[in-house]
Amino acid sequence: MPALKHGDLVMLWSPKKGDSYLVRLTPKASQSTHLGILRHDDLAGLCYGDPVLSNTGKIFFLLKPSMGEYMRRIRRQTQIVFPKEAGYILLHLSIFPGARIVECGSGSGSLTTFFASMVGTEGRVFSYDRRPDFSALAQANCERWGVADRVEFKVRDIGEEGFDESGADAVFLDVQAPEDYLQQARLALAPGRQLGLIVPTTNQLERLIPALQAESFVNIEILELFLRRYKATAARLRPEDVMVGHTGFLVFATLVRGQAEVAESGDE
Amino acid sequence: MPALKHGDLVMLWSPKKGDSYLVRLTPKASQSTHLGILRHDDLAGLCYGDPVLSNTGKIFFLLKPSMGEYMRRIRRQTQIVFPKEAGYILLHLSIFPGARIVECGSGSGSLTTFFASMVGTEGRVFSYDRRPDFSALAQANCERWGVADRVEFKVRDIGEEGFDESGADAVFLDVQAPEDYLQQARLALAPGRQLGLIVPTTNQLERLIPALQAESFVNIEILELFLRRYKATAARLRPEDVMVGHTGFLVFATLVRGQAEVAESGDE
Amino acid sequence: MPALKHGDLVMLWSPKKGDSYLVRLTPKASQSTHLGILRHDDLAGLCYGDPVLSNTGKIFFLLKPSMGEYMRRIRRQTQIVFPKEAGYILLHLSIFPGARIVECGSGSGSLTTFFASMVGTEGRVFSYDRRPDFSALAQANCERWGVADRVEFKVRDIGEEGFDESGADAVFLDVQAPEDYLQQARLALAPGRQLGLIVPTTNQLERLIPALQAESFVNIEILELFLRRYKATAARLRPEDVMVGHTGFLVFATLVRGQAEVAESGDE
Amino acid sequence: MPALKHGDLVMLWSPKKGDSYLVRLTPKASQSTHLGILRHDDLAGLCYGDPVLSNTGKIFFLLKPSMGEYMRRIRRQTQIVFPKEAGYILLHLSIFPGARIVECGSGSGSLTTFFASMVGTEGRVFSYDRRPDFSALAQANCERWGVADRVEFKVRDIGEEGFDESGADAVFLDVQAPEDYLQQARLALAPGRQLGLIVPTTNQLERLIPALQAESFVNIEILELFLRRYKATAARLRPEDVMVGHTGFLVFATLVRGQAEVAESGDE
Repeated sequence: MPALKHGDLVMLWSPKKGDSYLVRLTPKASQSTHLGILRHDDLAGLCYGDPVLSNTGKIFFLLKPSMGEYMRRIRRQTQIVFPKEAGYILLHLSIFPGARIVECGSGSGSLTTFFASMVGTEGRVFSYDRRPDFSALAQANCERWGVADRVEFKVRDIGEEGFDESGADAVFLDVQAPEDYLQQARLALAPGRQLGLIVPTTNQLERLIPALQAESFVNIEILELFLRRYKATAARLRPEDVMVGHTGFLVFATLVRGQAEVAESGDE
Repeated sequence: MPALKHGDLVMLWSPKKGDSYLVRLTPKASQSTHLGILRHDDLAGLCYGDPVLSNTGKIFFLLKPSMGEYMRRIRRQTQIVFPKEAGYILLHLSIFPGARIVECGSGSGSLTTFFASMVGTEGRVFSYDRRPDFSALAQANCERWGVADRVEFKVRDIGEEGFDESGADAVFLDVQAPEDYLQQARLALAPGRQLGLIVPTTNQLERLIPALQAESFVNIEILELFLRRYKATAARLRPEDVMVGHTGFLVFATLVRGQAEVAESGDE
Repeated sequence: MPALKHGDLVMLWSPKKGDSYLVRLTPKASQSTHLGILRHDDLAGLCYGDPVLSNTGKIFFLLKPSMGEYMRRIRRQTQIVFPKEAGYILLHLSIFPGARIVECGSGSGSLTTFFASMVGTEGRVFSYDRRPDFSALAQANCERWGVADRVEFKVRDIGEEGFDESGADAVFLDVQAPEDYLQQARLALAPGRQLGLIVPTTNQLERLIPALQAESFVNIEILELFLRRYKATAARLRPEDVMVGHTGFLVFATLVRGQAEVAESGDE
Repeated sequence: MPALKHGDLVMLWSPKKGDSYLVRLTPKASQSTHLGILRHDDLAGLCYGDPVLSNTGKIFFLLKPSMGEYMRRIRRQTQIVFPKEAGYILLHLSIFPGARIVECGSGSGSLTTFFASMVGTEGRVFSYDRRPDFSALAQANCERWGVADRVEFKVRDIGEEGFDESGADAVFLDVQAPEDYLQQARLALAPGRQLGLIVPTTNQLERLIPALQAESFVNIEILELFLRRYKATAARLRPEDVMVGHTGFLVFATLVRGQAEVAESGDE
């Protein structure tokens, strides 16, 4: 079992109410918590799974952060895509080790980090955003997870210049008016593959559907996911009192060629 | 754009009500549909995204099946893990290209196929089931997706013999009485990493929680996911009338060392 | 405990899988079930709660049907309002013993029956529909529950002729294009009281909101209700596999006077 | 249209973000809001639906509070039953003008107030609680809504003394361990009628099911209701970000006679 060293990401988890802290081990740094202080130099050399005591004698465990936990805690300036949606997106697009993925916008990079993790060292993510600050933040978040070298970040308004890529395995759009960028998405995507989108309002969905049909996208799926958590108390098992009511609607559609007058079939 | 050849998986999708058929192109084979017959030999040589006509003149498109679509259509003899849960499991466990994953049972192999796809050529999945027929089915389903060479299928009652592996990046249990196999899971898993489980009933959850705590698993999360689909009709947008009400409860917990008297904190 | 007599409504419930039959006791009639035949004349004279045997020796219990069960089993030619929505509507509108309620359309009368039950002998329901066949069906369903004498059924296109009433305690609209009837609803409703509506699509919601604001309705609430059932099996408690995904969106708004330039506040 | 007078309940509603205040008009009283002060003496003489200005010139409307709004704002010392559950309970139990209803415990009286409203002047609610302070609070909340004269409040531990009533149209239990009071409920309820219960945990459900079967209750239904709100913004229609994840599980069962060896059928 390799010992932790400076540079590693660690989740400090307290059995006291489950509080946790995500830290990158850094020489001479320390982490303040409401249960005392932990010096990073004391953590280096330990292993994932080990217990450690704060300066006030409170126990913490060193856990290996999962991708889901990292996404939830990512530094953000935008609305982010959450794990419950991200996992479903992965399964619906053709994302696998070696894949070439195009996304716009980069936002805070939560989805970028995830895509970059999953395409592996031989895959590639092309992540566009017209705002340099978002692009830089997304890059920083990818670097923190150690996958920034698999991503090309580009600052660009794709409405004017389009994507550089073609024949991509998947394209994902998380932008304000995705109906305006479907031609660009079509040119970047390999035929027979899937475009994914996320939008927060029903008005956007209503505009998207005919726009997708006009750009040779078929097999349109629209869905939303709810996540309901339970309190892990064996003798009084019950769902948590509050849940997230909405993050966004997911849309998927497949690009075809020569669609001509193919009409999408609804609930006629 | 490479042409399709025999052996490739293709989804035949009809714009007529969205009916679709998943086929592996095979010389001299043909696919019957209620919209006519398609000969595989006519499909080889075309590309993903292309249209094709059935013998009765109905149009179909050749789509590249996504992992999610493959899982939903997998040949099954058991309850399977569905895409909405599978994506979340991926994010919560440490599954990435190169990872070593242990699962029990193999079931029909839907999760096995997904795990094998995502660990890539350098990763490895160890999939256990005590029933030879399930193990064989899971293997066949992995082969159909082209990832069986990354999986070691083992027919075994892990309650008696345990797992062969240790230090795995993640362990997933989909068995009747997971509380009986937590010691085996603990021995297979690297400390600080996550165990995932799926169970259908609340009684199982109530038994699992104390059993996890007794085997040095902390940070227990319990949740369920709902998927709600919408009819893709722009002028009359509305959710579908029927939805799946339950598949299973997902449970995640992290393995630590020397947990001693760590008490999990509930809603006290 | 009064004995059952011909004319009474009874729910015949079998412990065998919970099958049940709603019958009105009628001389010489009999009820066929897949567990045998029950003669109504044998049931008259028994009491609610009593067991009875079919001609093949299978046990049934005589239960008093609840309003909710009656609504779910109502004879219908239209989409009906279901108990989960009906109960919420009651609480949100000013429906109480003695109230005067206006509704359009009558549909199959499920909501009419419920409203009529709850306003009591001193209240009154005015139920409009432009289709004579729906109005007649709604009346028949109210009669079957014994509350038709509290309802005035009117066959009319309210778009042209409006409602006869004014100062109603509540108005409920279940029509195709409710945004076209808000002026009529305003004239029928007492100020400070609530208008209720149900629509199936998001497009209708988007049209309704500005139309309500234009007709002096404020305090707009939009919501939907989900009902999730569990299998009543103590040792294997779990939600049912399938649930209803959508019936309709409920909308409530309060009528005011002299609203002038009152702007509804959204999520600005 | 009758003018408002002292003693009436009024909801003061501001178009500014929809803030509202529930007040009972009282001579010389005034209501402070963050949009200024309103003197009750200025409101008496106006009508529901009228606008009024605060001392700082901000507009408010005088709305007639609905039962649902009253329940949500009730003064409470306990977890209360909410409108989404209350409406469904009404439909499932035999609650109608003239009915006799037994409930335990009184709690904060939200359900008591609702039941009392719906049974009308000829009906009767018998509301038990073993804590005098809860009973007094429930009574005060019924008085505020003007229906306390239809309720008999009794301070008693029903586990020891049982209910005084028999042949009730419905019984509702909202207590910690309802499985301990089913014999008492059976003695109070008319056969063929429904018992309703609400419990927060799955463990309670698992104990309740066999206990109900042992006391001649059949036709057991278990369910939960979710309420999802939307932002009433026509151009950006979307669900609200947060929703309630859990209030309680509703249980209904029907009392029969001579159930003998009737086995409830589950999902065998």
